[in-house]
Amino acid sequence: MNIALAQINTKAGDIAFNKDKIIGCISRAMNNHIDLLVFPQLSISGGPLYDIAGMPDFIDKCYAALEDICSAATDIDVLVGMPVVSGDDTFNAAVHISRGTVKGYYSKAMPFDRSELPFFAGVDSPYFYDEEALEQEGMPEYMIMCGNKKVLISLGDDLQFIDTLPCFTPSERDERPDCIVHMAQKVFFHDIIEDDLEYLSGLAADLQVPLVSVNGVGGNTDVVFYGSSAVFNAKGQLIRKLKNFEEDFAEVDLSPDFRNKIISLPVKSASAKVRHAYKAIALGMKDFFEKQGFTSACLGLSGGIDSAVVAAIAVDVLGPDRVYAVMMPSRFSSEHSVSDARQLAKNLGISCDKISIEPVYDVFISSLNPVFKGLPFSVAEENLQARIRGTLMMAVSNKFGHLLLNTTNKSEAAVGYGTLYGDSCGALSLLGDLYKTEVYELAEYINRNGEIIPKNIILKAPSAELREGQKDSDSLPEYDVLDKILYHLIEDNMSVLEVMSEGFELESVQRAACLLKSAEHKRHQFAPVIKVSRCTLGKDRIIPIVSNY
Amino acid sequence: MNIALAQINTKAGDIAFNKDKIIGCISRAMNNHIDLLVFPQLSISGGPLYDIAGMPDFIDKCYAALEDICSAATDIDVLVGMPVVSGDDTFNAAVHISRGTVKGYYSKAMPFDRSELPFFAGVDSPYFYDEEALEQEGMPEYMIMCGNKKVLISLGDDLQFIDTLPCFTPSERDERPDCIVHMAQKVFFHDIIEDDLEYLSGLAADLQVPLVSVNGVGGNTDVVFYGSSAVFNAKGQLIRKLKNFEEDFAEVDLSPDFRNKIISLPVKSASAKVRHAYKAIALGMKDFFEKQGFTSACLGLSGGIDSAVVAAIAVDVLGPDRVYAVMMPSRFSSEHSVSDARQLAKNLGISCDKISIEPVYDVFISSLNPVFKGLPFSVAEENLQARIRGTLMMAVSNKFGHLLLNTTNKSEAAVGYGTLYGDSCGALSLLGDLYKTEVYELAEYINRNGEIIPKNIILKAPSAELREGQKDSDSLPEYDVLDKILYHLIEDNMSVLEVMSEGFELESVQRAACLLKSAEHKRHQFAPVIKVSRCTLGKDRIIPIVSNY
Repeated sequence: MNIALAQINTKAGDIAFNKDKIIGCISRAMNNHIDLLVFPQLSISGGPLYDIAGMPDFIDKCYAALEDICSAATDIDVLVGMPVVSGDDTFNAAVHISRGTVKGYYSKAMPFDRSELPFFAGVDSPYFYDEEALEQEGMPEYMIMCGNKKVLISLGDDLQFIDTLPCFTPSERDERPDCIVHMAQKVFFHDIIEDDLEYLSGLAADLQVPLVSVNGVGGNTDVVFYGSSAVFNAKGQLIRKLKNFEEDFAEVDLSPDFRNKIISLPVKSASAKVRHAYKAIALGMKDFFEKQGFTSACLGLSGGIDSAVVAAIAVDVLGPDRVYAVMMPSRFSSEHSVSDARQLAKNLGISCDKISIEPVYDVFISSLNPVFKGLPFSVAEENLQARIRGTLMMAVSNKFGHLLLNTTNKSEAAVGYGTLYGDSCGALSLLGDLYKTEVYELAEYINRNGEIIPKNIILKAPSAELREGQKDSDSLPEYDVLDKILYHLIEDNMSVLEVMSEGFELESVQRAACLLKSAEHKRHQFAPVIKVSRCTLGKDRIIPIVSNY
Repeated sequence: MNIALAQINTKAGDIAFNKDKIIGCISRAMNNHIDLLVFPQLSISGGPLYDIAGMPDFIDKCYAALEDICSAATDIDVLVGMPVVSGDDTFNAAVHISRGTVKGYYSKAMPFDRSELPFFAGVDSPYFYDEEALEQEGMPEYMIMCGNKKVLISLGDDLQFIDTLPCFTPSERDERPDCIVHMAQKVFFHDIIEDDLEYLSGLAADLQVPLVSVNGVGGNTDVVFYGSSAVFNAKGQLIRKLKNFEEDFAEVDLSPDFRNKIISLPVKSASAKVRHAYKAIALGMKDFFEKQGFTSACLGLSGGIDSAVVAAIAVDVLGPDRVYAVMMPSRFSSEHSVSDARQLAKNLGISCDKISIEPVYDVFISSLNPVFKGLPFSVAEENLQARIRGTLMMAVSNKFGHLLLNTTNKSEAAVGYGTLYGDSCGALSLLGDLYKTEVYELAEYINRNGEIIPKNIILKAPSAELREGQKDSDSLPEYDVLDKILYHLIEDNMSVLEVMSEGFELESVQRAACLLKSAEHKRHQFAPVIKVSRCTLGKDRIIPIVSNY
C-alpha cells in the first residue's frame, strides 16, 4: 500500500484557503498513483478553533468544502479532518473519502474542547462512529478498509488509548489492522519533537503495527504546529521523517516486502533545543504576519539583549527592508546603549531612527507637577519612561502599518519586571516564553556563523535603565539563579520549600514566588506570546487576578 | 428538620479567610440548634479556581482546613464544598460533616474544569461517591442521612441531571429523598436571578420534593456570584429567599407540618434588569478592591456618559474621598466637556484636577516629526491623544496607589472603537459588558432619586473628540441600531443574513460584523471586564487573533 502524508500549513477558520491547499495535494497524490492520502487533524477548518466552531454556518461551510474535495478525489482514498455534528455535539473527526464519495466519519473520543489543545486527558472510552461500518457487520467502527488493507484511525491525543481497543486483545488477532494512521495538530514546546518520535516508535513496536503520524505545521496566533510527521514500521523503526517547521509531502510504500531505509531517531541536545526554539519562533512570527497580511514590523532597540534578539529574528523572517527600529534613549541611558544598538542595526542592515524621550518626559512631568506636588521620584516616573516608549512605537505602528514586536522575556513576565502599557505593548511577543538565560542562548545561536548581535550586548549586565545606575540584579537575583528558581516554580510546579531543598536561598525563592503571584494582572493584559515551553504563562497556568493561594 | 443556609462571600484560594467565615457560621447555627447547615459549592477553597486547584499543597491545605472545621462542628450536620482527590482526578465535592467527623464526600459529575464555570453541559451520568454509603448497603451513594431524614445532594450544574437518578423512578418510591440540597456558585448575568428561581421552583414541583439551593455571593475578579439562595416546598412554592448581591444567613423548618409563608417569585422587568446590573457591577468592583486591599480609585472624566457612570458607581462603592478624577482636554474637546465633567464631580463630591494634554501632545508630535516627515493627520495622531491620557492616568495610579478604572463599554469593545493602551487601560472595566444603550439606562437608574449625572451628559451626542467635530455616528451607526445588530451577532450568534432579515441594512450589519472580527487583538489585551451579560466578549466568545471565519 502506497500512503502519502500531506504536512500542510492551514489557517484557522479559513475554509477556502485550506480547501485549495488540500485539493492541490490530492491532484499531486493522484498523479503519483497513491492509494491513501492523509492530512492532519482539522485540516479543512484549521485550528486551534476556540469558538470559531460555533460561529453561524461554520460547520455547514466545512461540509460544503468537503463536497468540493470529494469531487477532486476521484481516484484515491483520502483522510481529512474537520468538525462534524452528531446530535447536539460537535466532534473533531476524520472523514474517509474513497473515490469521490464520503465513506464514513471517525470521531475523536471527546466533544470539542474550545482550543483543541490537550485537555481531556484521562478519558477512558474513545468514541468513534462510521455510518458505513455500522451497517457492515463485523467491521470495527474505528477502522476503514483501503483496498484490501485494514487501516485504524486515531485522532490527536486519542492515540494514548489505542492499546485498549478490542482489535489489540490477543483473542482478536485476526482483527489487527495493517497500519495505524494518526492525524494530529501537535503544538511545539521544548523537546517535544524528540520525545514524541520516541513515543510513537515505542507504540508501533509494542503494537507491532506500522504507524503513520501526520502532523500539521505552521504558526496560529500563539501556537506553532511543528510538523515532523513520521512513519514507523511494525518494529517501531523510523522509516520516513518529514521536515520540522516547514510544509512537506512524502510518499511511503508500506508493503511488508518493501524494504524501507531505517532512519535513526533524533536525540535531544542543548543545540537542538535552541535551534528548534528559534525555528518555532521564526515560523510563529512569519505566519502571524503572513496570515493577517502584514508585511513589516517595528520595534524599539534599547541596546539590550532582548530587543537585539527580536530584531535579528524579525530580519530573518521579513528581510532588513521590512524591519524598522527606533532607539529611544533617556537621561538614564548609558553611552553604550545607543552605540550598541546602532552597531546591531548596521550588522542587520536595518534603518534605525533615534527619538530621545527626554522632551516628552519633561513635559509630562511638568504637566503632572500640580498633581504630584513635588513628591519624590518613584515607580511612577520609572514607568512613565517605558510608557512614553510604548506610545512612540505605537504611533509609528499606526502611522506606517508596521506591527509592533514586543521584546519582553519570560523571566520578566514571570516576576512583573516591566511596565504595563509600556514593555507589555506589541502585537506579538517573540520571547515571552523564553527565560532570560535562554534568550542569551538564542543570541549565541544567531551569532553561530559570525557576529550579528554585537558582543558587548551579550556581555554587559542587564539593566532597564529607568533610574540612575540601575541594574536588574539590584532588585532581582542574578538571572542564572532566578531562572532556575522560576523554572522549578512554573514548569515543575514546586512549592517554595521544595525549591529551597534544591539548594536555593529561602529568601530568594519566597521573593520570586511572591513576585510571580503579584504580576498576574500584568500578564492578563500582555501581548500574545508564542508558545515554546511546556508551561506558558497566561495560557497553561491561569491564576485569577483576585486570589490568594 | 431545621436547615440553615449560609450564603457567604469567599475569596478564591484564600483557605484561611474562608475557613474563619465557615466556622463563624457553624457557631451561629449550633447556637440556634440547627440540624443541617449548608454552604455554597467550593466554600473552603473559594472560586473560580482555574489553575489554583493544581498549585502545590493546595488540596492538602483544604483537607487541613476541613479538620479544623470538623473540630468546630461538634453538634451539627454540615455540608461544605471543596476540591477533593480520588485517584488521578480532582473533583469538585460536597463534604458531609456530622457531629465533628467527616461522613462522606459527594462529587460533582465531572472532574474539575479550570474555571468551574458551566462547561460540561451534556454529560449524562453524574458520578458520586461516599465512603460510608458504599459500605452501608441499600443506601444510594448520592444521599446522606441527617437524623432520620434522607437528603439528596446536588452540586452546581449536576442539578440538570437530578431527575435521572434512580430514586426518582416510580418503582423506587420508598427511596425518594425528604429534601434536595443544591450547592452552587452561580455567576450573574442579565435575568438569571428570575430565570433560575423559576427553574428551581419547577424542578421542586416536578419532583415533589422540597429543594434548598445555596448559592455563593461576591465578586471574584471578573465574575459575580449573585446570592439569591432559596428554599422551595414540595409543591415548588418559594418559602424563603435570601438577599441578592449580599451575604445572608437564613433558617428554615422543613417539617411537613410546619407552615412556611409562601413568597411570590420575582418577575423579570426592565427596571429589575438595570437594578441587578448596577448591583452586580458595584459588588464586583467592591470585592475587586477589598479582596486585594486597595482602597482608592482614579479615572479620567471626559464629560461623556461612560466615565460619568463609572465615577458614580465608584463613589457609591468607595465614597467620594476615595475617588480621584482627572479631566484631560485637548484642542478637540468641546467647551461643555470640561464644564459637564466639573458639574459631575461637584454632584459626586469628588476632587477633580485638569491636565491639558496639549503640551505633551505637541512635544510628541515634534519628536515624531523627523520620522513622520509631514505625513497628514491620521489614526496615529488620534490614538496618540488617547495614549497620552492613559499614560497620565497610570502615572497618577502609580504615584498614589489608586487603581485605574476603565471606562470602555461593550459596544466600543465589540467594534474596536477605542485605542489599545489608551482606552483599554485600567485595572478593571465596569462597563465592558454593557452596550452603550444599557449604559444610558444605568445613568437613568443612578439619577432615579435626583440628578447625579448632569442631564447634558445624558442628552448630548457621543463623541471620542479625537479630531475636529468628530461624532461616534460619523463612523458607526447610531447606537440604538448598532447595539441591536451587535446583540444579534454576539448574544444570538446570528449570521449577517439572519441579522439583516430582522430588518437591518445589509451594509450596516456587514460593517459591524467586520469590525467585531477585526477588533479581536484589542480585546486580547483589554482590562478584565465584570461579566453581566450571557456572552461576555473575550470570555464566553474567544476567537483566535489570526483567523478568518
